[in-house]
Amino acid sequence: MSFQSTLSLSLDSPTHAICMVGMEISLDISGCAPEKCMSFTIRGSPRVLIHISSAVLTGKEDSVVWRPMNHPTEALVRMVSPSPTVDEDKVLVSYYCPDKEVPTATAVLYLTGIEVSLEADIYRDGQLDMPSDKLAKKRWKWGLNGWGAILLVNCNPDALGQPGDKSSTQNGPKEIENLSQMTLTVEGPSSILQNYQLLLHTSEEEAKKARVYWCPKGASTYELIVGPNKPVYTLPTFENRGKETFYVEATEFPSSSFSGLITFSISLVEKAHDQWIPETPLYKDTVMFRVAPYIFMPSTQLPLEVYLCRELQLQGFVDTVSRLSEKSNVQVASVYEDPNRQGKWLQDEMAFCYTQAPHKTVSLIFDTPRVSMLEDFPMKYSLTPGVGYLIRKTEDHRVASLDSIGNLIVSPPVKAQGKDYPLGRVLIGGSFYPSSEGRDMSKALREFVYAQQVQPPVELFSDWLMSGHVDQFMCFVPTEDKNNNDQKGFRLLLASPSACFELFEQKQKEGYGDVALFEDVKTEQLLSNGREVKTISQILADKNFREQNTYVEKCISLNRTLLKKELGLMDKDIILIPQLFCLEPLTNVPSNQQTSKLFARPYFPNMLQIIVLGKNLGIPKPFGPQIKGVCCLEEKVCGLLEPLGLKCTFIDDFDCYLANMGDVCASVIVKRVPFTFKWWKMTP
Amino acid sequence: MSFQSTLSLSLDSPTHAICMVGMEISLDISGCAPEKCMSFTIRGSPRVLIHISSAVLTGKEDSVVWRPMNHPTEALVRMVSPSPTVDEDKVLVSYYCPDKEVPTATAVLYLTGIEVSLEADIYRDGQLDMPSDKLAKKRWKWGLNGWGAILLVNCNPDALGQPGDKSSTQNGPKEIENLSQMTLTVEGPSSILQNYQLLLHTSEEEAKKARVYWCPKGASTYELIVGPNKPVYTLPTFENRGKETFYVEATEFPSSSFSGLITFSISLVEKAHDQWIPETPLYKDTVMFRVAPYIFMPSTQLPLEVYLCRELQLQGFVDTVSRLSEKSNVQVASVYEDPNRQGKWLQDEMAFCYTQAPHKTVSLIFDTPRVSMLEDFPMKYSLTPGVGYLIRKTEDHRVASLDSIGNLIVSPPVKAQGKDYPLGRVLIGGSFYPSSEGRDMSKALREFVYAQQVQPPVELFSDWLMSGHVDQFMCFVPTEDKNNNDQKGFRLLLASPSACFELFEQKQKEGYGDVALFEDVKTEQLLSNGREVKTISQILADKNFREQNTYVEKCISLNRTLLKKELGLMDKDIILIPQLFCLEPLTNVPSNQQTSKLFARPYFPNMLQIIVLGKNLGIPKPFGPQIKGVCCLEEKVCGLLEPLGLKCTFIDDFDCYLANMGDVCASVIVKRVPFTFKWWKMTP
Repeated sequence: MSFQSTLSLSLDSPTHAICMVGMEISLDISGCAPEKCMSFTIRGSPRVLIHISSAVLTGKEDSVVWRPMNHPTEALVRMVSPSPTVDEDKVLVSYYCPDKEVPTATAVLYLTGIEVSLEADIYRDGQLDMPSDKLAKKRWKWGLNGWGAILLVNCNPDALGQPGDKSSTQNGPKEIENLSQMTLTVEGPSSILQNYQLLLHTSEEEAKKARVYWCPKGASTYELIVGPNKPVYTLPTFENRGKETFYVEATEFPSSSFSGLITFSISLVEKAHDQWIPETPLYKDTVMFRVAPYIFMPSTQLPLEVYLCRELQLQGFVDTVSRLSEKSNVQVASVYEDPNRQGKWLQDEMAFCYTQAPHKTVSLIFDTPRVSMLEDFPMKYSLTPGVGYLIRKTEDHRVASLDSIGNLIVSPPVKAQGKDYPLGRVLIGGSFYPSSEGRDMSKALREFVYAQQVQPPVELFSDWLMSGHVDQFMCFVPTEDKNNNDQKGFRLLLASPSACFELFEQKQKEGYGDVALFEDVKTEQLLSNGREVKTISQILADKNFREQNTYVEKCISLNRTLLKKELGLMDKDIILIPQLFCLEPLTNVPSNQQTSKLFARPYFPNMLQIIVLGKNLGIPKPFGPQIKGVCCLEEKVCGLLEPLGLKCTFIDDFDCYLANMGDVCASVIVKRVPFTFKWWKMTP
Repeated sequence: MSFQSTLSLSLDSPTHAICMVGMEISLDISGCAPEKCMSFTIRGSPRVLIHISSAVLTGKEDSVVWRPMNHPTEALVRMVSPSPTVDEDKVLVSYYCPDKEVPTATAVLYLTGIEVSLEADIYRDGQLDMPSDKLAKKRWKWGLNGWGAILLVNCNPDALGQPGDKSSTQNGPKEIENLSQMTLTVEGPSSILQNYQLLLHTSEEEAKKARVYWCPKGASTYELIVGPNKPVYTLPTFENRGKETFYVEATEFPSSSFSGLITFSISLVEKAHDQWIPETPLYKDTVMFRVAPYIFMPSTQLPLEVYLCRELQLQGFVDTVSRLSEKSNVQVASVYEDPNRQGKWLQDEMAFCYTQAPHKTVSLIFDTPRVSMLEDFPMKYSLTPGVGYLIRKTEDHRVASLDSIGNLIVSPPVKAQGKDYPLGRVLIGGSFYPSSEGRDMSKALREFVYAQQVQPPVELFSDWLMSGHVDQFMCFVPTEDKNNNDQKGFRLLLASPSACFELFEQKQKEGYGDVALFEDVKTEQLLSNGREVKTISQILADKNFREQNTYVEKCISLNRTLLKKELGLMDKDIILIPQLFCLEPLTNVPSNQQTSKLFARPYFPNMLQIIVLGKNLGIPKPFGPQIKGVCCLEEKVCGLLEPLGLKCTFIDDFDCYLANMGDVCASVIVKRVPFTFKWWKMTP
């Protein structure tokens, strides 16, 4: 029986063909027409659809069309549903000579319709029906008018670390409903279907990045049928025709070597007749999935949960953050420091992300530990149920390394240079140009972030900072003025030494030159952090200190220009926070990694390292000059932020912010509300 | 002197600033306004452009604008050209109290304009001027309305094989005019410029893929300044301000791990004041290039030159091709077989491509030798001057390997599923689904072809053929009927066993059943190729042979369906060429690679392996049944092709087409006219 897409008719004997539902057969009508016949009629049985020139015949009305036959004529024949038995459907073509009422001859095409189709939720509405555009599911299109099915990466912390251990996956994942569905429909007369084999397959490369599970009828467990080293699965012969559901998950996020696209196909293969004729592939139906990227959340998104490292020596910090979280109605989860990690690691090495498919949103921790071998994963065990875990080892293990996810922050949604960034842009710190001393995030990690596509990165200059992390000089806070007066609903806060000098000069003019910074800090704390009590006038008179801050100001100014351009910001979107820095040699690295270059550290606790919990801001207490019982730095910052509806709480913990392990408030990460905008609606 | 993008004015003393030409300074006007002053005037010197609200002041008319000052007011200040001396340009803001004619106070901003700009031919018109949209050159946009500079890969065969040999590149390439230009303009007062350093740089990764040459004033040779392991070059201090030209080439085509985008930046860095203040990057100007892809040419493009392997044992082939080339006014270059290669290699392992930038088009040979070590490159030395050479070793070294560039052909320009493919689509053969026996083009080579982006590949099913190459069952020929009657200007020829059986059945009916195939072929030639003289009736009576061809017909039919869909072809665009196949075990591989599976070989010389030289076709002579002195197969093919304006010459060389080394006419490749359509005008 023929399986061709082009058929000729014959007057001698009927033609028989199998027609795949959804596929077209082009039927040569004029080839066998008797000489002198100048017209013909064509009719089809109810499941047959005939296109001829511009007319469409639906078989349902047993319709007939009269056509003159002046040059080669062909009809396109399709079936709308499978046939219950062999040769159950047909197309009749009758040829007429001029002025005769009875046909001179009639050709018959017997059709057996069968359906083999692989479907996924390409329109993201939970429906897995055959799309009207049969080719759409083979492609994946970004954007508002796009389509395409989506896979989630299995970030279950239990699934970690046993890539070779088959027993853990053989029985299928625990939460099958988190997986994307793919359905196979096979219908048609079983006497026909039994001649064929059905293979579910992908390529060897793609098979490494996905797993397909199936629970055959009657079985009690889900079986891994396609996955690493198993690109093809031969389905058992379908005795009972119908629909089967497969469950699919990805094992890898997109990366520089993986576009994120994975296709699965069902191939219909005619079994080998005898040993001399090989098996013959006849038909393939293909569905393309895209692996959902991970998405970072900017500090302007509302908080959901705070992960806090409760270290005893940071009691002031821990207490304030706990109170602040309570005030913001946010749950606090306590996590414990891994003894294998170096220093305070939480915010430095981890970030909360989420990944999203139409049927499910999963929060996950993206962990970039600096130690090469983590013997245990205490973080993994501290996770709130349902939170996923993704680990990428850093290449540069120094504490002052830029090679960790802590060296990135995310902007709120912006529009710049005519392009929308509805999920914001990732801001990565690095050196401005390559040099032997310059520090950058490793190419591997940077490319991994770029490969997600939906938050196109901007590379900033942060190598002037000792910690090298961009969150030392900038921060985004939410405001409620969106769409008022062309406002964007957020402000960018930038550290500004000149704003601080201006404030101090003004206070000096007002007669407070003798008031000192750090007056309330304990002497041993100052000593251990290399600071001393200094008056406003002493600070203003220190020429070298002023020069250091002029350098810092230039570095921040360069970033300000970049940020304005790449995020489409105006000056009114930016607020300058008074902050002083000082230059010091790298102290927190082994002596063989030290250079003569100096790096900037905050001079007093860095007010840019704000914990943003909605309107409530936890700002490091600067321990600035107290004038009339009020710290003039705190007063200034409140004066800038409170008119925007923000509430400032100052975190009273000097050590936490000026310890010598990197000047970072690294003991908290915040899980936030995902964007309402769906990533697949944008065009990267 | 300030270098900031945001400035405040002061009434006490003038403000001084450096302004980069093309950059904006936002100037706070209201900050220093005396109380009670309700309006101001602003004027700039001739090189200054001031934007305030919606008004633009060009300095040229020494213009003044009056403005009421009711809320915070800022002006955007730009310079249109550099200043000849320090503080040569200025902006004056005068503040007025109500009802006073004399200004109450005046603030002055002294400006020194300097220009540092890196330009390339982003609009592809040979002009390297600063674009009006300063940000455009940082991005690269595909399509008709796109822009972006283009780099060519150095495919000079002399540049091959010495990646580590610096001496060969140190003095610069021989043909500097083939390289893309990049200009650096530096202008401004030298007393200012001498405080800065200029660095030309890219990233370490990108530096591996490009080379920048420069011939400093007074020098006589081109120096390699940026390239592998040299991502940064510090330019000598510019005593003589002006324009410098750099010459840039790429060393790699885009691949799965290289997007093809390379950016170069010029950074202006303030030198370190003293040892305690690090050098400060102040400004960066960036240009993005895209490395031009290589482009394959379909057989429908007009021929320019024929590369022919003149082997003595193929005299019939060599003579006919030479005559045919002469007829088509095409030059013939003789090339010699590499003794290290296995079998006939030319067409199997090589293809002509070209690569193109606005200033230059380069033809090149893409060679995929099957031997792992080529001791010599005879091909390289046989090249016509100016033809480039690109080599990629195959991974699968078997003769019956699909892992070579010979296993692809290119379609003419098509439109399919609403998408234009103005440079056609690459057709790659492979297995239909992965299996242990299945042969495919290696992932590395396939991804390399995909990465060129401009000829999106279609993967066909060719693993049923012994040679595994798609050119065994299909061929494109040019016609002159483009745009007539919706014609496409080409036809796809497909091998058709059923068309051959139909022809033979008709001849049998006409009484020629006893006429034999291969009657004119020498007995020893038949013997050595495993063929024998057979009559039409014998062929038609061989049931097993018929079954083999039914299998082949199904395999081709599957490809026909794929081709119609992916190339947007109609049945009328396809011509069926009678051709028979037979199934045989793989003979041309070592015994340990043999399987029990049978593969298809042409039964008589394969008429689809046409050498297309414009209208002149060189078609393998099938040695079919002679009826009334004419081969009925030749007659049939001429009847199909000659009405289309094509001229058929049959190549009288049985051995050439049926030797046991792969059934391929592998001794000729044709250099063709590049497409007139420019690749950068399409959107992949």
